[in-house]
Amino acid sequence: MAIRLADLAVRYGCELHGDPDREVSCVGTLESAGSTAITFLANPQYRKQLATTSAAAVILAPEAVADCSVPCLVTKNPYAVYAAIAAELYPLPRLNAGIHPQAFVSSNAVLGAGSEIAAGAFIGQNVRIGDNVLVGPNCVIGDDSVIGAETRLIANVTLYSRVRVGSRCIFHAGVVLGADGFGIAQTPVGWRKVPQVGGVVIGNDVEIGANSCVDRGAIEDTVLGNGVKLDNQVQIGHNCRVGDHTAMASQSGLSGSTVVGARCVIGGKAAVAGHLVICDDVFMAGRASVTKSIAKPGVYSSVFPAEEAGIWRKLVARFKRLDEMSARLKEIEKQLKSAADRTK
Amino acid sequence: MAIRLADLAVRYGCELHGDPDREVSCVGTLESAGSTAITFLANPQYRKQLATTSAAAVILAPEAVADCSVPCLVTKNPYAVYAAIAAELYPLPRLNAGIHPQAFVSSNAVLGAGSEIAAGAFIGQNVRIGDNVLVGPNCVIGDDSVIGAETRLIANVTLYSRVRVGSRCIFHAGVVLGADGFGIAQTPVGWRKVPQVGGVVIGNDVEIGANSCVDRGAIEDTVLGNGVKLDNQVQIGHNCRVGDHTAMASQSGLSGSTVVGARCVIGGKAAVAGHLVICDDVFMAGRASVTKSIAKPGVYSSVFPAEEAGIWRKLVARFKRLDEMSARLKEIEKQLKSAADRTK
Amino acid sequence: MAIRLADLAVRYGCELHGDPDREVSCVGTLESAGSTAITFLANPQYRKQLATTSAAAVILAPEAVADCSVPCLVTKNPYAVYAAIAAELYPLPRLNAGIHPQAFVSSNAVLGAGSEIAAGAFIGQNVRIGDNVLVGPNCVIGDDSVIGAETRLIANVTLYSRVRVGSRCIFHAGVVLGADGFGIAQTPVGWRKVPQVGGVVIGNDVEIGANSCVDRGAIEDTVLGNGVKLDNQVQIGHNCRVGDHTAMASQSGLSGSTVVGARCVIGGKAAVAGHLVICDDVFMAGRASVTKSIAKPGVYSSVFPAEEAGIWRKLVARFKRLDEMSARLKEIEKQLKSAADRTK
Repeated sequence: MAIRLADLAVRYGCELHGDPDREVSCVGTLESAGSTAITFLANPQYRKQLATTSAAAVILAPEAVADCSVPCLVTKNPYAVYAAIAAELYPLPRLNAGIHPQAFVSSNAVLGAGSEIAAGAFIGQNVRIGDNVLVGPNCVIGDDSVIGAETRLIANVTLYSRVRVGSRCIFHAGVVLGADGFGIAQTPVGWRKVPQVGGVVIGNDVEIGANSCVDRGAIEDTVLGNGVKLDNQVQIGHNCRVGDHTAMASQSGLSGSTVVGARCVIGGKAAVAGHLVICDDVFMAGRASVTKSIAKPGVYSSVFPAEEAGIWRKLVARFKRLDEMSARLKEIEKQLKSAADRTK
Repeated sequence: MAIRLADLAVRYGCELHGDPDREVSCVGTLESAGSTAITFLANPQYRKQLATTSAAAVILAPEAVADCSVPCLVTKNPYAVYAAIAAELYPLPRLNAGIHPQAFVSSNAVLGAGSEIAAGAFIGQNVRIGDNVLVGPNCVIGDDSVIGAETRLIANVTLYSRVRVGSRCIFHAGVVLGADGFGIAQTPVGWRKVPQVGGVVIGNDVEIGANSCVDRGAIEDTVLGNGVKLDNQVQIGHNCRVGDHTAMASQSGLSGSTVVGARCVIGGKAAVAGHLVICDDVFMAGRASVTKSIAKPGVYSSVFPAEEAGIWRKLVARFKRLDEMSARLKEIEKQLKSAADRTK
Repeated sequence: MAIRLADLAVRYGCELHGDPDREVSCVGTLESAGSTAITFLANPQYRKQLATTSAAAVILAPEAVADCSVPCLVTKNPYAVYAAIAAELYPLPRLNAGIHPQAFVSSNAVLGAGSEIAAGAFIGQNVRIGDNVLVGPNCVIGDDSVIGAETRLIANVTLYSRVRVGSRCIFHAGVVLGADGFGIAQTPVGWRKVPQVGGVVIGNDVEIGANSCVDRGAIEDTVLGNGVKLDNQVQIGHNCRVGDHTAMASQSGLSGSTVVGARCVIGGKAAVAGHLVICDDVFMAGRASVTKSIAKPGVYSSVFPAEEAGIWRKLVARFKRLDEMSARLKEIEKQLKSAADRTK
């Protein structure tokens, strides 16, 4: 597929600098894009590559136009426009509608038109699947689950029973939705499992990365809002509620019963303790450990950047003597005060 | 199913306040339970909801009875009693005994009575499976593995060869037991893999959360005791031994050859270094980094709670200058001492 | 299989102490090896067991010979020699060449000689698989992927489309290669997915642990060099490049577009931020948070070892008052200076 720059400019409301009939048919990086590729500048650290790029065109912000040696599409949000154009150039693979003979589909499941149930897929009792859904190879869908139109389960995804999923979601390989939450009650003879009888509800346009998990609720549902994006190996505990358009990077996690607002961004390996409430528009840096509710939008952090080990060891040793340092400081203050008192 | 409160009171040794013939048929939260639901109070932060709940009955501790506006079952361990009653109201799904035609079962595997081998399951050579076991869809069981009665592998679980599992265990989707430990030996031309020839032994009543891993031993076995509970995305390195009734929360991990005692509780994202010995009854806070053996029961922590990023940045900058601060303090002490000496 | 010590000594260039005709047929630990087992001493903490071991032979370094009560093979690298001998004693399971009738193989896939495609495996369009490859039960291989000779996918592994893998690799259960990177562009109405059109390239002799993920590139490829070793639950973001013979322990992760050099060792739960460059021969301690590029080989750390919670809480409280402590110190310095000035 080849698209004229003029058409892209109109479609995405960009100002076009350069030949309107120039066509692009693929994407590339500034550094290595070929003559039919479109690319973009979003991270200023790559700006100097504008002078040397061989791309057919660059999507960029107004302030970078002057540096650009090739045609460009000018927009305030180059990365989002790039995303849209790339989606045109690389449409999702088409589905092979139907049930593969090596799939298992329970007799009372309901499948929408155009949906593909691949080899090795397993569809439980009373499952309802919308139109144009992909249930990829070796995916498992538990009883009574519901999947909205155009959602795609790539491969080896597991949905337990009573998981309700919206439309246009993407679940990557190894995703597990609806496993039992970690509910265990202490008894004199060990832990007793607390049945997890809630479900999972996933909004529309949710994408969940490989091997991420969303546990089912203990009593009520665990809920991800519309447009939530989870990276790989993310963990969502039981009863959590994640607001619309919140994004969580890889290896982050929410303990049980925590409520996260809308439009939050949670960095890689960040963790939020249980039973907290995080307001909208909170940004947690990578590895942040959030142990109290947050009522004020903003950026939160608790990471220590790595140092050379010798330096680090000394810092930790000092840290462990902070109490002693504080005592010495107090002693000095006392001495100075009594000296001052004497000279009064 | 509906159960009379009087029956529950007798069965679980609770004092009953309210109508003994009242029946409950489901569970709910204090806040939203309907008139046929039983609920519980364990976390004091919800105590005020006792006044307004519409539940049929509440399971609670003696000190909360006075606040409760509806029938209640009084016990010292409300959460454990709730767990037991919920298990009555929501029994595990019944198995469909037999081997699904889309499963693969090797000719010399031995299956107990009442066990279900679902579509897509794979059972290797010489596997022995007890009675009433569930091997869910797309689970894989390697050669020579043994699974005790009533254990359930939900879906997409992988057991390697020579994994021995007790009775009444639950392994959630994506669990991997018996993968090779991370044994690599440095050589002048790169790493050489160290064959991992030990096995994995799992006790009775062990539950392992989604996408968690227990590596096989390098030479001897990796062992989880009875009643061990692992949350999702937990990692157990090779040769570890985890004592009975120890619980590990999500994304925590044990490096290789570490021994953890009985009844420990390991918080989310906590990590224990390799070759350590942790005694019984140790509680590690979330994100704790345990780098030395622990011989004394108690609570251990190393987490820094997140702060607003501006404040945090300053704290880290101060931390990195601790050496300088310490030097300045020493200099002051020296000055004061020499001043004092002069005035003697 | 039994092997004479004399043969092993010759094959691995070891000095032999003891009966050259003694045979070994299995491995064991120093503590519990039986009379036909060979073992090794690499970690000095086990040295005293040399006096009491019942092993047939011990592989050890020259300085330990004197302590050893049984035959020994002396070498500078006992662990690597052990690895090689163990690999002789425990050869990889032989493959059952052919396509299992319960596998799905697309009509235009190309399979090398001796390869085994197990029950439940799924091989997409145009896939090319080398000789003696294992595609284990319920593994999924996406369209246009390429797998080199003797590579083994154990079970429930997912390769997306256009993943290129070298020879002699081992991918453990639950591994996901080629899932979409976490590319999302902010817009006024939520996140827009950025198509991930690059691939994944994996070198030769790469081993990847259970449930680890390597994302496909956004535009170009994500690349793991030859001999890279990843433990379980490791995450590699899109566009990363990992140099030859770098090893990453469990639950560590690289954010997107980061380049890691050769022969690095990255500890468990360590994390490297995005768009960084890490030089060769960097060792990151467990839980290190690397937030800046590293140009100097060495050891880097940022972990705080856990303390008893009471002590830890005080330390954190002190830490949060570092600003105040610094102000008090400055105030004292001011006082002393003005006192000194007065006495001039």
